[in-house]
Amino acid sequence: MGCTQSKHDASEDASNGTMLQAVLGHLGQLDGDAKLDHTTMSIVYDIFKDMDKDSDGTVDKSEFEKFLSTHPAAKTLWEGEGKASMSRSLKDAIADERLSFYELVAAFAPEAPHHAGDASGIGGLESLISDAAWGYRGYNGPENWALLSPKNKLAATGKEQCPVDILPSTCVPCPAVDGDASLAYGVGPGTILNNGHTIQVNWKGGSMSVGGTTFEAAQFHFHTASETTIRGMQYPLEMHVVHVTPGEPMRIAVLAVLFETRTDVEEVFLSQFFDQLPSHVAHDQDDAETLTRPVDLSSISLDGGYYRLRGSLTTPPCTEGLEWSVLASPLPILPAQLETFRKALGKTVRNFRPTQPLNGRTITWVCACQA
Amino acid sequence: MGCTQSKHDASEDASNGTMLQAVLGHLGQLDGDAKLDHTTMSIVYDIFKDMDKDSDGTVDKSEFEKFLSTHPAAKTLWEGEGKASMSRSLKDAIADERLSFYELVAAFAPEAPHHAGDASGIGGLESLISDAAWGYRGYNGPENWALLSPKNKLAATGKEQCPVDILPSTCVPCPAVDGDASLAYGVGPGTILNNGHTIQVNWKGGSMSVGGTTFEAAQFHFHTASETTIRGMQYPLEMHVVHVTPGEPMRIAVLAVLFETRTDVEEVFLSQFFDQLPSHVAHDQDDAETLTRPVDLSSISLDGGYYRLRGSLTTPPCTEGLEWSVLASPLPILPAQLETFRKALGKTVRNFRPTQPLNGRTITWVCACQA
Repeated sequence: MGCTQSKHDASEDASNGTMLQAVLGHLGQLDGDAKLDHTTMSIVYDIFKDMDKDSDGTVDKSEFEKFLSTHPAAKTLWEGEGKASMSRSLKDAIADERLSFYELVAAFAPEAPHHAGDASGIGGLESLISDAAWGYRGYNGPENWALLSPKNKLAATGKEQCPVDILPSTCVPCPAVDGDASLAYGVGPGTILNNGHTIQVNWKGGSMSVGGTTFEAAQFHFHTASETTIRGMQYPLEMHVVHVTPGEPMRIAVLAVLFETRTDVEEVFLSQFFDQLPSHVAHDQDDAETLTRPVDLSSISLDGGYYRLRGSLTTPPCTEGLEWSVLASPLPILPAQLETFRKALGKTVRNFRPTQPLNGRTITWVCACQA
Repeated sequence: MGCTQSKHDASEDASNGTMLQAVLGHLGQLDGDAKLDHTTMSIVYDIFKDMDKDSDGTVDKSEFEKFLSTHPAAKTLWEGEGKASMSRSLKDAIADERLSFYELVAAFAPEAPHHAGDASGIGGLESLISDAAWGYRGYNGPENWALLSPKNKLAATGKEQCPVDILPSTCVPCPAVDGDASLAYGVGPGTILNNGHTIQVNWKGGSMSVGGTTFEAAQFHFHTASETTIRGMQYPLEMHVVHVTPGEPMRIAVLAVLFETRTDVEEVFLSQFFDQLPSHVAHDQDDAETLTRPVDLSSISLDGGYYRLRGSLTTPPCTEGLEWSVLASPLPILPAQLETFRKALGKTVRNFRPTQPLNGRTITWVCACQA
């Protein structure tokens, strides 16, 4: 909280003119083989966000003109020689439509054939934006996932996306006395890796049955803070146990487990492998480290009740049709363990996707007495 | 969750060489009157974070040398002519010490007298970094507040900083049957403003008594997500009612109220003024809008129990010695109201400071039966 009058954040008003000029010059010099580097994209995204006054992810004509009117150096550049080196005028592009961030970048792209774009006007950027791997903030953050690749389009157009906010009072109690899911978890060896998005344990020591289908556990990984929220509350950590069916088409079931910081109960699950959290980013699965001890998941139980819904991957390509289950009772994590995990994730700091609309989906509540 | 092997985020490896060169050239040309603009600072901060492999907020010699070895363009610049225009060599500065972000910026600052720096080596940047108003992300985010101004030093050195994580099992029950706090809230007129950090209602319609001292309500404002956490759980919204004593030295008491999204109970508090949330940033209190209806805070009650501790402002200058109380029972917020609030805050998106160490402080729990 702040007690006294807070000064307006003057940094938001700072003229980006000088740097903008350098950046646009750099963009304007791109040829068919040039790559947009991370720093350039970050700067252009900052400028884009600065123009997007209503924070809806697009810039319209009035926002663009207001930006130019308050940034004289940018205005001079737009109206001057700088435009000559650009393949397409942003002013023209913006005249009668709203422009997304990647459309703004496309406005600078040369007319090379592989930049021509597909029906969506975005696909042609794929080869241009070679560094636009997805992430959790900035230009490659969740709000732009669908724009990074046509493969990710469900991130924007899907109707059963995850994570979701669970409002227990709106959930429908399961009519079946035995619920529709069961766990058969045991002890199994594992390998662990930090893939730059999360820390993941590859583990095949059990299965989950959902609606009569058996899904084999393949891996579990973590998000901080939690992706799933309960009444809007975000837990400090969430684990996703990912299960798949062996045949084709492969089906996926996810068991989500929330964690809360506690010091009054013994923590038995995470301590099995939290001494081996890798902080260096592995480039592929071959770099995964073998865990020194097998991991026992049998302490994970549905007995405390769980929520069931249809959902999606929470990372690109955000595939839908998944069977989602969320345990109602959180597991404990020690405050020091949480710090250890966040330190291992490093500058990523956070790796959660914001909650997505239910779009009419029903969340079923299977209570403890029925499990 | 992601089911398949996640590709390493290649953007982290992108060579920042070209932009780095432009940025360093810009920094090198700074004279005593030049200002570091927002974009330049953001870029330099991104580069700094990229160098800081262990994410401890400083860069040491080995990290710096590793950065140069993987960024040929930067290495060429450092070892070439670029250095001549700089007042102080970063390589020299970094040789035998760890360098913070603002020390890195200082390494470029001309030797003008007002940039000489104080004992901390940071103070001299004050006049240089005129746009470094505090914020919630990037170079002026919480981890750098203490470096923005000597006035903010408690943000780094304080021992009773807020917010905190509350672990109910470690709290000490209040020995007094009546607790030590009481509320006398009524109905009063208010004005509302968006100060760029939060949305604040100036309101003088009641008081809070703590430990025998009466504090008059001055304003309340909001953080999203919550600053205070309970067992690590972050609520979607937190309100801070700020109270002050009339005399000198002024003392401050804060009542923190958490919110959870609900649709099964009537929301009566926020709806009094949530139709007037300003999305434009006001430059001073004179721009505050008068609320069309008086605001009634009498629905806020200590009856559900509360936590008490000594704490601080959660925004610069992070002043300590405050009486902190946190209601145990959250108030409801409708999902649509939460969306409305976040939309009004705009690109700020989040305005919470992470939780701070207790450093031995006791949190007292005053339970409902005692209140």
